[in-house]
Amino acid sequence: MKTDIEISQAATMLPITQIAEKVGLDQESIELYGKYKAKVTYETIKEKEHEKLGKLVLVTSINPTPAGEGKSTISIGLADALNRIGKKTILALREPSLGPVMGVKGGATGGGYAQVVPMEDINLHFTGDMHAITTANNALSALIDNHIQQGNVQQIDTRRVIWKRVVDLNDRSLRKVVVGLGGPMQGVPREDGFDITVASEIMAILCLADSIHDLKKRLGKIVIGYSFDKEPITVEDLQVEGALALLLKDALKPNLVQTLEGTPAFVHGGPFANIAHGCNSVMASKLALQLGDFVVTEAGFGADLGAEKFLDIKVPVLGKAPDAIVVVATIRALKMHGGLAKTDLGQENVESLKNGYANLQRHIKNMQQYGIPVVVAINEFITDTEAEFSALTELCKKDQVEVKRCAVWARGGAGGEELARTVIETIASQEETDYRKLYHSDDTIENKTNAIVQKIYGGNQAQFSPKAKKQIQLFQQLGWSNLPICMAKTQYSFSDDPSKLGAPLDFDVTIREFVPKLGAGFLVALTGDVMTMPGLPKKPAALNMDVTDDGQAVGLF
Amino acid sequence: MKTDIEISQAATMLPITQIAEKVGLDQESIELYGKYKAKVTYETIKEKEHEKLGKLVLVTSINPTPAGEGKSTISIGLADALNRIGKKTILALREPSLGPVMGVKGGATGGGYAQVVPMEDINLHFTGDMHAITTANNALSALIDNHIQQGNVQQIDTRRVIWKRVVDLNDRSLRKVVVGLGGPMQGVPREDGFDITVASEIMAILCLADSIHDLKKRLGKIVIGYSFDKEPITVEDLQVEGALALLLKDALKPNLVQTLEGTPAFVHGGPFANIAHGCNSVMASKLALQLGDFVVTEAGFGADLGAEKFLDIKVPVLGKAPDAIVVVATIRALKMHGGLAKTDLGQENVESLKNGYANLQRHIKNMQQYGIPVVVAINEFITDTEAEFSALTELCKKDQVEVKRCAVWARGGAGGEELARTVIETIASQEETDYRKLYHSDDTIENKTNAIVQKIYGGNQAQFSPKAKKQIQLFQQLGWSNLPICMAKTQYSFSDDPSKLGAPLDFDVTIREFVPKLGAGFLVALTGDVMTMPGLPKKPAALNMDVTDDGQAVGLF
Repeated sequence: MKTDIEISQAATMLPITQIAEKVGLDQESIELYGKYKAKVTYETIKEKEHEKLGKLVLVTSINPTPAGEGKSTISIGLADALNRIGKKTILALREPSLGPVMGVKGGATGGGYAQVVPMEDINLHFTGDMHAITTANNALSALIDNHIQQGNVQQIDTRRVIWKRVVDLNDRSLRKVVVGLGGPMQGVPREDGFDITVASEIMAILCLADSIHDLKKRLGKIVIGYSFDKEPITVEDLQVEGALALLLKDALKPNLVQTLEGTPAFVHGGPFANIAHGCNSVMASKLALQLGDFVVTEAGFGADLGAEKFLDIKVPVLGKAPDAIVVVATIRALKMHGGLAKTDLGQENVESLKNGYANLQRHIKNMQQYGIPVVVAINEFITDTEAEFSALTELCKKDQVEVKRCAVWARGGAGGEELARTVIETIASQEETDYRKLYHSDDTIENKTNAIVQKIYGGNQAQFSPKAKKQIQLFQQLGWSNLPICMAKTQYSFSDDPSKLGAPLDFDVTIREFVPKLGAGFLVALTGDVMTMPGLPKKPAALNMDVTDDGQAVGLF
Repeated sequence: MKTDIEISQAATMLPITQIAEKVGLDQESIELYGKYKAKVTYETIKEKEHEKLGKLVLVTSINPTPAGEGKSTISIGLADALNRIGKKTILALREPSLGPVMGVKGGATGGGYAQVVPMEDINLHFTGDMHAITTANNALSALIDNHIQQGNVQQIDTRRVIWKRVVDLNDRSLRKVVVGLGGPMQGVPREDGFDITVASEIMAILCLADSIHDLKKRLGKIVIGYSFDKEPITVEDLQVEGALALLLKDALKPNLVQTLEGTPAFVHGGPFANIAHGCNSVMASKLALQLGDFVVTEAGFGADLGAEKFLDIKVPVLGKAPDAIVVVATIRALKMHGGLAKTDLGQENVESLKNGYANLQRHIKNMQQYGIPVVVAINEFITDTEAEFSALTELCKKDQVEVKRCAVWARGGAGGEELARTVIETIASQEETDYRKLYHSDDTIENKTNAIVQKIYGGNQAQFSPKAKKQIQLFQQLGWSNLPICMAKTQYSFSDDPSKLGAPLDFDVTIREFVPKLGAGFLVALTGDVMTMPGLPKKPAALNMDVTDDGQAVGLF
């Protein structure tokens, strides 16, 4: 069995200029980053402004389990399959963070014969977008601390700075730090902390901005903290939104790569799916829709988080709802949701599967609420049995949803043709999607939060901590109430308790605190502890990494 | 008068593929980063391994003053001028750090009509080399802290970790920090600090490594700190040199850009000239020498620091000494060395000039000690008078050195032709340079340090602090004594007192402490306080920066 990196390195890639040609972009429309990566110029983006948009397919999943779902792999395989059956299809995916790559084996570029390439580059520095975001984020921190040190005209209360520094690494020792030590020439001491780069509000902004102009406006709105009078202080108050936008001027341009089968793929932007919205950039999604007849995209974590945020936060900005939603599951994961232990997943167990279906079912019904047709994709494993799959087909039939098996990991696009045809038929069967919002932005913060808890999670209601209640009042005074809610919740359960698999009932969700992200344009609602800086494991993946004398990556995956 | 960025943006650049062709590199030999930047592939570097080397011209200067010298500008103009008079010449320069760019107006890409372009890109993210170094440096920090947290098999003493984190920003608040706060799940608390990226030992290593193989070996030798038993702990002990080398695999490839006049320029690597050796990379220098008949390169700060380190640290690794050294001065700066106040520099003052010549003279004689012929270049200012220049010519004549005026800032290569011809004649006048080392590496640390203090600085001797004395003993036991010395001293004076301009006499230089840089392959000798993390000024340059809606940089310089 070949590893992902072996398959990837053995692949013959097309020059990226040829991939660009497939979607009608000539050499002048792109900026090369080596032979197999490119960015699209602003001139080209402007030219395509009024193109008709293609059909959008959103790939999401059940609540993730340690059994694995393979959402990226299915997205890639589905796009390859669509191209195989003659549909001009483009992928629009997130770009991976380097931090986890150094920690745990396993990339974010698909797997097996459904990968985007060059995978080493994409998983390491790629075209430098993450580094630009890290730099802009930390330049803002340096400018804040310098402002405080040089007279503090804005009266920034050092105890109330909420802007944190970032690194694109898993580094638990940076979670809580004290900076500015060493005496009067070394800044003003204060508590600070580092997040991982993908948790930076600047990442969320980059992914929601639709132009440099909009990027700059959003950067200006970032609230970095509060004054001694508890007034919010923004980037605009510090007059550095221009400098930050300048640092991001190339990072905002969509990146073009390809799949192993030569499907054009925009891999651009990758905000955390917990404290941010977890989807690729609006710039790349829109361009893909302008250039392709079909676009396959995905959202982070399960459909309760990623897809909900895609539909309630990204769609209003993108101005286009999905025409179909593919919910990915595996037989193994469904059995786990049905109560089977991880060690027993290799054995047939129809009963557990049936029990676990409750998780998939709730996600299906959730997505249907938005007025968008759903297809279920089962990422095949060698241990799946016919009895299990028939039982699942039966259950899906009752819910009037098509379910298709997918073997794209083992066979590439050829293993996803049946799913591709079903997706096409599903889209064709409706004239226009009847996208319905879950809530209206101008509703109260309480009502919007409850809409998500009740209609998506299936819980009783949201409980607000005393702190959260005070914040709701404050945000109303400040005029921040009419923003969508970005839930930060465990991805493992519909509830805020990661151990409650399946489809838990009769629970409340506690909102501990809100975090205003005015630049991104949402209010983050924190439930429980949210990890914004991962740590490294006992034996980090870095220990196995190497590079040959001629520059080939070794041990990356 | 046009600003640097206006001149730069108005320039018509040649596609970098055409620049590459000028030096015999076809499209397959390079990897494009946009239309005007490229990296050279490892295959190409290997192919050129046995090419004959061209002639090397090192540009250095008097001790810098606030009056400005313009070493980079002269280097660029000289290379343009050499090409104008028919000599196939390539530039090999350092790449700038982003940190100072956000702080103080003024780039590191030359000025006026002697610039390397595209200047915005080079001054901002360029090809990502700095970001790769930042990432590798901080990945090592994360791996060290993770090692400590996960059982600390190597028994790292958290009080004796000497490896610091970095950011490519001016950020004084990060100079001294405490990390690992927040309880047992957030790492082990310890004192730490951040340097600017160019101060990272990894930057020095990248600039001295001659292959990926050598890079990895050097990374493995980095001493990150000491165990509870005071034994040194290296990167090899942590088994992560492969991962670090992997993160640097693209950063090690030389970057190709061009001057405003289309001269090919390798802009690659930029170690600090204080705690490191301050020269561009060996990889780029060697490649330039293999591809060009003449190569112009420069070294940081004045000749007492940059050129001394070039000659004693870089030359043994490069395997090639300069064929000529150009010492840059300005009439204004010489008058300042002669005691004239900054406010009076606009007026003719032959007396001050004559006094200030002592500084230039000592640098000339220093360079001649190495057996390499010297030419003096005067970077012209509008306030220079004929009387001043005649006086200077007279003085140089007595020291048997040619002096030429240069107007490359105002006129590009055309303003440097006379200097170019003089350099060519000087090189032609000798059959082979008779490069003589200042000291032998296997001499004692005391003798090597004294050689620099006495023969270069003109001081009496080096005084070693009690701590430095203990370190000398320790380093001898550890077998680290046979490394060259990298002096960290103020650039403003031959002495360790920045206020002593001109050519001070009768002084000692105090060595406060040594820092072992086993990966880079030198011992840093600290005299006084060394700035490894600059701060931002009261009104940072960032306040004036912006980007237009179509992606053009504004207010960069």
